[in-house]
Amino acid sequence: MKPGPLLLAVDVGGTTIAAGAVTAEGEVVLEERVPTHRDGPGHALGVLEETIAHVRLAADRLDHTISGIGVGVPGPVDTKTGRVGEPVTHVPELSGVALAARLHERFGLPVFVDNDVNALALGEWRFGLGRGADSMVMLAVGTGIGAGLVLDGRLIRGASGFGGELGHTPIRFDGPRCFCGGRGCLSVYASGRGLAEAAQARVAGHVEAPLLQAADGDPMAITAALVFRLAAAGDALAQSLVAEACQAMGAMLATIVNGLNPEVVVVTGGVAASLAPLETRILRAAAEYALPQALARTRVTIVPGDKRTTMRGAAALVLYEMDSRATR
Amino acid sequence: MKPGPLLLAVDVGGTTIAAGAVTAEGEVVLEERVPTHRDGPGHALGVLEETIAHVRLAADRLDHTISGIGVGVPGPVDTKTGRVGEPVTHVPELSGVALAARLHERFGLPVFVDNDVNALALGEWRFGLGRGADSMVMLAVGTGIGAGLVLDGRLIRGASGFGGELGHTPIRFDGPRCFCGGRGCLSVYASGRGLAEAAQARVAGHVEAPLLQAADGDPMAITAALVFRLAAAGDALAQSLVAEACQAMGAMLATIVNGLNPEVVVVTGGVAASLAPLETRILRAAAEYALPQALARTRVTIVPGDKRTTMRGAAALVLYEMDSRATR
Repeated sequence: MKPGPLLLAVDVGGTTIAAGAVTAEGEVVLEERVPTHRDGPGHALGVLEETIAHVRLAADRLDHTISGIGVGVPGPVDTKTGRVGEPVTHVPELSGVALAARLHERFGLPVFVDNDVNALALGEWRFGLGRGADSMVMLAVGTGIGAGLVLDGRLIRGASGFGGELGHTPIRFDGPRCFCGGRGCLSVYASGRGLAEAAQARVAGHVEAPLLQAADGDPMAITAALVFRLAAAGDALAQSLVAEACQAMGAMLATIVNGLNPEVVVVTGGVAASLAPLETRILRAAAEYALPQALARTRVTIVPGDKRTTMRGAAALVLYEMDSRATR
Repeated sequence: MKPGPLLLAVDVGGTTIAAGAVTAEGEVVLEERVPTHRDGPGHALGVLEETIAHVRLAADRLDHTISGIGVGVPGPVDTKTGRVGEPVTHVPELSGVALAARLHERFGLPVFVDNDVNALALGEWRFGLGRGADSMVMLAVGTGIGAGLVLDGRLIRGASGFGGELGHTPIRFDGPRCFCGGRGCLSVYASGRGLAEAAQARVAGHVEAPLLQAADGDPMAITAALVFRLAAAGDALAQSLVAEACQAMGAMLATIVNGLNPEVVVVTGGVAASLAPLETRILRAAAEYALPQALARTRVTIVPGDKRTTMRGAAALVLYEMDSRATR
């Protein structure tokens, strides 16, 4: 029997392009990783096309057909036209590229391009923790914070592709400036960048601060991971930053639960590994703000992500778009 | 020519039941108002049924047929079963009633029941300021604050009917207690109840406070409307409360714009008449928090509502549900 058709799934990151072939059930059967900037700065598009061609060839050899290509990119995408907006984190050469049209022309297959967090959310909804739910919110906490919203069975992209920018929710309207230009955003308190910057500001002038010593005296070497590590080891300054991050995450979860009342909330991303051991504490903070009847119906899980998850996301994007078009 | 079929639209309020017949284009052709508690406490259901029967008869006389009944109630509704949850503001006898089934049995017509704010949002989306938009958020600012979310063409009701409880979004995660049990909610700063309670707390022990004098010395007689009035007249305490309300509304608008990126935001409800003259100020506050590219694509309008709007909402609920079922 000839094997079933596969989806060619690509996640473009600032460091690595991960590409693979994924079954309609979310199983990753082929996988390839290439440094995004292997051919030097400004050449990621060529690397991307070559990687896709390579995976396609490998699938051909296994006698698989490919029914579509899904690509997640680290920036906003106008999904109606498949054109990438800006900024695209660490891959500026993709900004303004009509990526879907270009890849379609080259490979002769249906191509769907979306923001990587949206793709990740679709993957989690189709194959992961959100499976079977009508509504799911995925919060991706990394250097920055993004979110993917699936509500009443639809991915919410918004009028200009900003749907899901929950990282810039003001949770303290008289709070400090955020790197986005806003004030008191969730990202100020709970993103990798926000935590690191807050720690850097707090150790300034305190050469004896354990956080500074652990970073060999270089404040710029203080990372969010270091803050979480020192908090666990008992450092008071790190603990106060982590306490604030937990409270901020709780307030954000309450905003999601009260406002959107989804069945499932998944917290993932680079900082999720540090947040997972604090899950009980974060949920206790959420309960301070959330309506009990709404919170009771929402399943919240904190899980670190991996590159396979992002590839499953790009595959889910293809399936989602093909389903949407079929029902129109 | 026989006139086209009408929708029988009902808005159940704590004081008044408004019922009418509405065309598929949103024109209110018949209208009737009855005090909800005309027959004494606990008898609102009887009044409701009688009012519906009365409007139906009036439509019959005009040779109109009625194609469905829509009812908005001031509480949560399980729209899958048409059962009213709790609490139902000022109409407790509706809690737990399978209202859709009951009215269907009595009148032999399709009946759809939903939360009044959801119905209002559907009306604004179909006939009002949200017409033609894929996504619209309606924020109803009154004694409390509710919202109706239409995203990607779907009304977002949530897993347990709490979709749209934006009034309890924490916008200051270390803020004061809210009457919902949470902390630092939008409602603390910008709802009618929150503003009145904040004013009452601030005048305590200050017999000379103009707010207190304007309320004839009775702190409990201070209302949000009075706070807005005295702020406009130059009272410093009232002005500081209004400034905080504007800032809070700005933060909320930014949360909506950044997170959901809708095409249209409509602010309405009992307090909207006081907020409308402050629109520029509220939008300036929103710009302090919102991503400029997202805010640029959202049209924000503050408009006082009226009872006709609520009836158009109940009619839009019928049309929305009939359309949804037809496409399933």
